Amino acid sequence: MTEKENFEKKKERLNELVMDQGNLQMKRFFNLDTQVYESGALSKKNKELLGLVASLVLKCDDCIEYHLNRCREEGVTDEEMMEALSIGLVVGGSITIPHLREAVGKWAEMQED
Amino acid sequence: MTEKENFEKKKERLNELVMDQGNLQMKRFFNLDTQVYESGALSKKNKELLGLVASLVLKCDDCIEYHLNRCREEGVTDEEMMEALSIGLVVGGSITIPHLREAVGKWAEMQED
Amino acid sequence: MTEKENFEKKKERLNELVMDQGNLQMKRFFNLDTQVYESGALSKKNKELLGLVASLVLKCDDCIEYHLNRCREEGVTDEEMMEALSIGLVVGGSITIPHLREAVGKWAEMQED
Amino acid sequence: MTEKENFEKKKERLNELVMDQGNLQMKRFFNLDTQVYESGALSKKNKELLGLVASLVLKCDDCIEYHLNRCREEGVTDEEMMEALSIGLVVGGSITIPHLREAVGKWAEMQED
Amino acid sequence: MTEKENFEKKKERLNELVMDQGNLQMKRFFNLDTQVYESGALSKKNKELLGLVASLVLKCDDCIEYHLNRCREEGVTDEEMMEALSIGLVVGGSITIPHLREAVGKWAEMQED
Amino acid sequence: MTEKENFEKKKERLNELVMDQGNLQMKRFFNLDTQVYESGALSKKNKELLGLVASLVLKCDDCIEYHLNRCREEGVTDEEMMEALSIGLVVGGSITIPHLREAVGKWAEMQED
Repeated sequence: MTEKENFEKKKERLNELVMDQGNLQMKRFFNLDTQVYESGALSKKNKELLGLVASLVLKCDDCIEYHLNRCREEGVTDEEMMEALSIGLVVGGSITIPHLREAVGKWAEMQED
Repeated sequence: MTEKENFEKKKERLNELVMDQGNLQMKRFFNLDTQVYESGALSKKNKELLGLVASLVLKCDDCIEYHLNRCREEGVTDEEMMEALSIGLVVGGSITIPHLREAVGKWAEMQED
Repeated sequence: MTEKENFEKKKERLNELVMDQGNLQMKRFFNLDTQVYESGALSKKNKELLGLVASLVLKCDDCIEYHLNRCREEGVTDEEMMEALSIGLVVGGSITIPHLREAVGKWAEMQED
Repeated sequence: MTEKENFEKKKERLNELVMDQGNLQMKRFFNLDTQVYESGALSKKNKELLGLVASLVLKCDDCIEYHLNRCREEGVTDEEMMEALSIGLVVGGSITIPHLREAVGKWAEMQED
Repeated sequence: MTEKENFEKKKERLNELVMDQGNLQMKRFFNLDTQVYESGALSKKNKELLGLVASLVLKCDDCIEYHLNRCREEGVTDEEMMEALSIGLVVGGSITIPHLREAVGKWAEMQED
Repeated sequence: MTEKENFEKKKERLNELVMDQGNLQMKRFFNLDTQVYESGALSKKNKELLGLVASLVLKCDDCIEYHLNRCREEGVTDEEMMEALSIGLVVGGSITIPHLREAVGKWAEMQED
């Protein structure tokens, strides 16, 4: 099983646990977290890029990996990805570099699949 | 002088002071901070939205106001703005609400100009 | 009009604007933000203290003021308040001190009303 | 050795190192960090919940695990735990979800012990 | 009364209130917060610079102003100040720029006194 | 291969990928991130300590490890290190403790090499 598959599988199992054990407010939050990325006046692609950059400046590797996968599904090009990540880098500073490195590494791996 | 004009004027005066007193690295950083929002594979409009959402989740009112002004100049619609802000709200949580309120208030004022 | 009344009035006006201009996801988020503090297995009082300490460590003055008001309404004593704030101070560090000072100042003012 | 035992053992070893190598101020800080959770006007249970929610919004997995263990010792129920976590989720936003997932997963494991 | 005097006076009044109303843990924390900046293996000057840069990357204007005043008292030169601030800028990113601007503005004012 | 060698090797590989795939702005940022730590009015040693404390309060383990290595190369003593870390601890609060523990552990390991 690849790293990406492991990531998805563990996340799925824990999401099910949250849906099973969590209260109504958690479930509503999880629904909202899906809804805001749905196609609207802004495209899914642009919304995923917004989620990605927000995740980078907040230094959340799991969130970054999730949005990288979604960005790839929405057809983000390498050049677009690097431009989005460079905005996150400049806004968030050198403290984001370890997460930027991981992001660039994972993005390269995804292109090989 | 309107609030927006005051904000721009004070920022300008202090920016000049940074350019005058600051070292080379600060100046290079300020240049980089301009370059990453220039038109490329992603449009200026989409880059400003990235900057806006990153600023919202990092709770920086001055940065939000700057990107709101730029978003307006780039023709972001009300619906697009609300979608972008709602992503920031969900990513960053209720702690962003005071900044979201200010952003919605300022956006409404800008439409009246 | 007291500072507290001004704070409440401006917040109310901007909240109305968010409800008027905001999208469905924002409204749902605002509803969730009310629901999680409602009485349940934990009392309203204990939930407000949770909201207060979370706001202190995230350094959000407006959120702190809101929860201070709610804590007072729920009958939090001075001693309980100082214990909650001291947890926030130790968790969040000296960077929370300006917000702690404001909180202690506002809490004292509320007792005088 | 279970994951929980490993976590406790490594923490213990490094705490001893801090006590051995650290300066007086570090030791005083560690003492303070114990004192603020002692029983007072607020119960130990409510103080641990405050520490837990502060740790969740600041996205510190080790701190969350520590407070989850203490909450269990203080008799926090599943329903109380989910209500506390849902406040942290709404205050801190989707960026806390990876930490919330871990917390719900670890809480479930603790119940099995 | 100058802005600096006002800042010092309000801080003093609220500090007294914290000392009066606060609990033992808060007082101990405030003591610790003084002790860590005292002369030791590192000089007061270098410790104040550490406090300044930490305050800049955590975006706390009050803390920055406090450490700017102390840095001036400890004889930090303009060049040293700009080098320290530029490290904070690069570590913390463009989100620190509004705080950097304020810092550079206040530092210039202090030189005029 | 030691942990430190592994850390350096992975970082090097990903840095090369960023240099290869990243855009001009990323490369300029990486250059700036080197320049601000170069010897100037402040010594390399004092600049590395500034980077270390900033990394501690922002809770970035990779950044901490990098600056610990550099501090050792610049001849920082144990006492100086503990004083710098204790400032980070007091500024950033108990949420930095897991990172402080790691730092103290890694610093001790480096002395054994």
